[in-house]
Amino acid sequence: MQNYRRTLLMASLLVPLLSCQHTQPKSENIQISEQLQQQALASSLAYDLVESLTVEVGPRLAGSEKDLIAVQWAEDKLTTLGFDKVYKEPVKVPVWDRGDAKAMVVAPYPQGLVITALGGSVATPIDGITAPIVRFDTLAALKAAPEGALTGKIAFIDHKTERHTTGKGYGKTVGGRSRGAVAAASKGALAIVIRSIGTDHDRMAHTGAMRYQDDVPRIPAAALSSPDADQLNLMLKRDENVVLQLKMSPQSHGYATSYNVIAEVTGATKPDEIVLIGAHLDSWDEGTGALDDGAGVGIVTAAGKLIQDLPQKPARTIRVVLYAAEELGLIGGKAYAKAHKDELAKHYIAAESDFGAGLIYQIDYRVSEQAFKDVLAISKPMTANGVAMGTNTASGGPDVSMLPKQGVPVASLRQDGRDYFDYHHTPNDTLDKVNPESLQQNVAAYAQFAYLMAQSEIDLRPLATK
Amino acid sequence: MQNYRRTLLMASLLVPLLSCQHTQPKSENIQISEQLQQQALASSLAYDLVESLTVEVGPRLAGSEKDLIAVQWAEDKLTTLGFDKVYKEPVKVPVWDRGDAKAMVVAPYPQGLVITALGGSVATPIDGITAPIVRFDTLAALKAAPEGALTGKIAFIDHKTERHTTGKGYGKTVGGRSRGAVAAASKGALAIVIRSIGTDHDRMAHTGAMRYQDDVPRIPAAALSSPDADQLNLMLKRDENVVLQLKMSPQSHGYATSYNVIAEVTGATKPDEIVLIGAHLDSWDEGTGALDDGAGVGIVTAAGKLIQDLPQKPARTIRVVLYAAEELGLIGGKAYAKAHKDELAKHYIAAESDFGAGLIYQIDYRVSEQAFKDVLAISKPMTANGVAMGTNTASGGPDVSMLPKQGVPVASLRQDGRDYFDYHHTPNDTLDKVNPESLQQNVAAYAQFAYLMAQSEIDLRPLATK
Repeated sequence: MQNYRRTLLMASLLVPLLSCQHTQPKSENIQISEQLQQQALASSLAYDLVESLTVEVGPRLAGSEKDLIAVQWAEDKLTTLGFDKVYKEPVKVPVWDRGDAKAMVVAPYPQGLVITALGGSVATPIDGITAPIVRFDTLAALKAAPEGALTGKIAFIDHKTERHTTGKGYGKTVGGRSRGAVAAASKGALAIVIRSIGTDHDRMAHTGAMRYQDDVPRIPAAALSSPDADQLNLMLKRDENVVLQLKMSPQSHGYATSYNVIAEVTGATKPDEIVLIGAHLDSWDEGTGALDDGAGVGIVTAAGKLIQDLPQKPARTIRVVLYAAEELGLIGGKAYAKAHKDELAKHYIAAESDFGAGLIYQIDYRVSEQAFKDVLAISKPMTANGVAMGTNTASGGPDVSMLPKQGVPVASLRQDGRDYFDYHHTPNDTLDKVNPESLQQNVAAYAQFAYLMAQSEIDLRPLATK
Repeated sequence: MQNYRRTLLMASLLVPLLSCQHTQPKSENIQISEQLQQQALASSLAYDLVESLTVEVGPRLAGSEKDLIAVQWAEDKLTTLGFDKVYKEPVKVPVWDRGDAKAMVVAPYPQGLVITALGGSVATPIDGITAPIVRFDTLAALKAAPEGALTGKIAFIDHKTERHTTGKGYGKTVGGRSRGAVAAASKGALAIVIRSIGTDHDRMAHTGAMRYQDDVPRIPAAALSSPDADQLNLMLKRDENVVLQLKMSPQSHGYATSYNVIAEVTGATKPDEIVLIGAHLDSWDEGTGALDDGAGVGIVTAAGKLIQDLPQKPARTIRVVLYAAEELGLIGGKAYAKAHKDELAKHYIAAESDFGAGLIYQIDYRVSEQAFKDVLAISKPMTANGVAMGTNTASGGPDVSMLPKQGVPVASLRQDGRDYFDYHHTPNDTLDKVNPESLQQNVAAYAQFAYLMAQSEIDLRPLATK
């Protein structure tokens, strides 16, 4: 971090020096973008917002009482910050309550294990489910098991998530979490436990959404902490008959109304054209949602506020969207796309911050092939903030990932996610994991991105096919 | 670790080279000591023992059913390993059951906190205790509060434990855990919560023993995880009236019998003189006691086994003592000192391994002033294993710490404890935290120490006054 700060400082000193050597005067867009960067790096607003949200609201599972307190918090903050417009849009969300989750090895070596229910899981009977486990390396291996191979058993998917800067290890294992229960139940399993989709060695299980399928029995689904998954392996090495007892009491309670909370800086000359920067307001219930996605809320709100406070508004409207219920299946993102269907043609570009508080090292776009080079050219001021120019294959972030299908250009501001999956969806997702300095660098990147896009004269459509 | 291995390899290559340049033949003691080092660094026995204990027994709170399973495990292992003698000695231990512990902030920002009961704590009433908190920087600050200052309140000691190689931060804060409840109750408090005595930022609370005093009311006592203590501070910054609800159901159930489990390598020429190397068999109930003190059990057992297997037994007897109920107040250590009162004069020296699995960087002694230099001289072969020669101020480890008062010399084999208090007394004390290579270096050090002491011709008594 220290080295990064030094590099950044040197870069910011060099930029004016180098530009003096140019004969062309610097464009106003570049000047303002540089000014936004400097302001962002000097401001604690994003961190203050994350602190306020995590302390004063805390965990805010979509559909819970706390979710509505978070919505009120967001409306109040955005209003106090003086955005041109602040409003909210209703989103229908399922209500699910975690209850308790306990696991015990009954044989051969009785002892407790640390588990957590996967989001949306059904409960076990009150007396629990007691059955031998059958271990699989991966979801694919489970799917390849013969029909009925799991009858009367508890499936155990033991896929280890690899650590990568990009977070790409998550994509390889998360299917076991989201689709494992359906796969296991279709082979006759009574329940499923998975090694947590995480990169840590802490004795905390990682929750996260899972899905059922109408024609397949709904079985309880839980994640084991990494040391507890290790423990099962060490038992299986000694005795293939490892019997587990699971007692889980989560409950679903129908649906509730949550809200996407939205703030705008009204564009000066093209107010109906939108540059969307988003994050999600909901969190899982066990941590305080500092990294996921308090950080994103702080970053895009602080970036929008810097632009709101410019003496001259940018051409296009900047829309800050704090999405509802991302964790339960991008519900706020889908609701936004539906509610704003007729306006999507006017969405110039969209990006979501939902990967913690690590430094942004690269920006990827998804625009037309023709526009790509020009977009990189106008994004160049971001390099002084440590952001490299990337590819034309962005997905834009979870809640905007459905927009490219409808022709909307997106950008992905890539964060260093090496430790993101150490904390993701655990009780450990707390404020102390947020680095205030890298948060500032994120705000600088989002402010520059949003401003430059709002001023851009490039036609970004139609999107390149991936 | 890589660097350490390289250094060690170079050292082991240099030792024979250098010794070739000597004109004096190497003494047999030095040769055997070097051979023990090499064997230890090539053996996985200590790790295999830690794995076996943590997987097949798991958590083993003194006085619990699991404690007796651990005693049986130890007897079986020591017998199978072929020690000359294996026996056990009864120890009376209190029985305490953790039950559940929940904490909620009731006002100003309702949310759950992560706590754990301190060992020996009484329960709250079933409906819990709901009261405002009063924060203190330290136990000393609490003690300095006016009489009755805590009437109707919950005390909160917020002392942060500093990270040090020696672990000395623990000594500065642990009084808040062991004596906080008495101090708080004597000022009228209804309960006490402390910032965990730990150096991590994980959302896990650290348990550990606490004491009551007959003339002071017994109040419930719990530890908060470090992020939860931070959370209370951030709430207090906003509103001094922070109201907590504690619900805890631990229970005491009288006393049970546990055992010190003992193995011996019978000395060849002075069998009644004892070199004691110990560790404790019990653990807290939330982790699997891998670092505390599975590692110690593995280290001293494997060290003893290497000496057992020598073609020629050392002069003195090597006694491996696996103590009962260290965590509940050095109960096994005290029982041993009492049961062996008449034999203590024949204890040549004693040392306990109870500080995890970090590398040993130094050996300290507590012997006579006269003997100290000579003892360091005969300990020199340990330097090839990375162990520096230290001071004459050792305490010897918890379960032998009462022996110097009775004239018994002790040694402290100092381990790198920088991360020990990240995991200490938490669910996170699991096998994955044990580094197999540093465990081997520990075994080498204990084997060399025990052998050299068993062969020593130095009179170590009377002990130097500290």
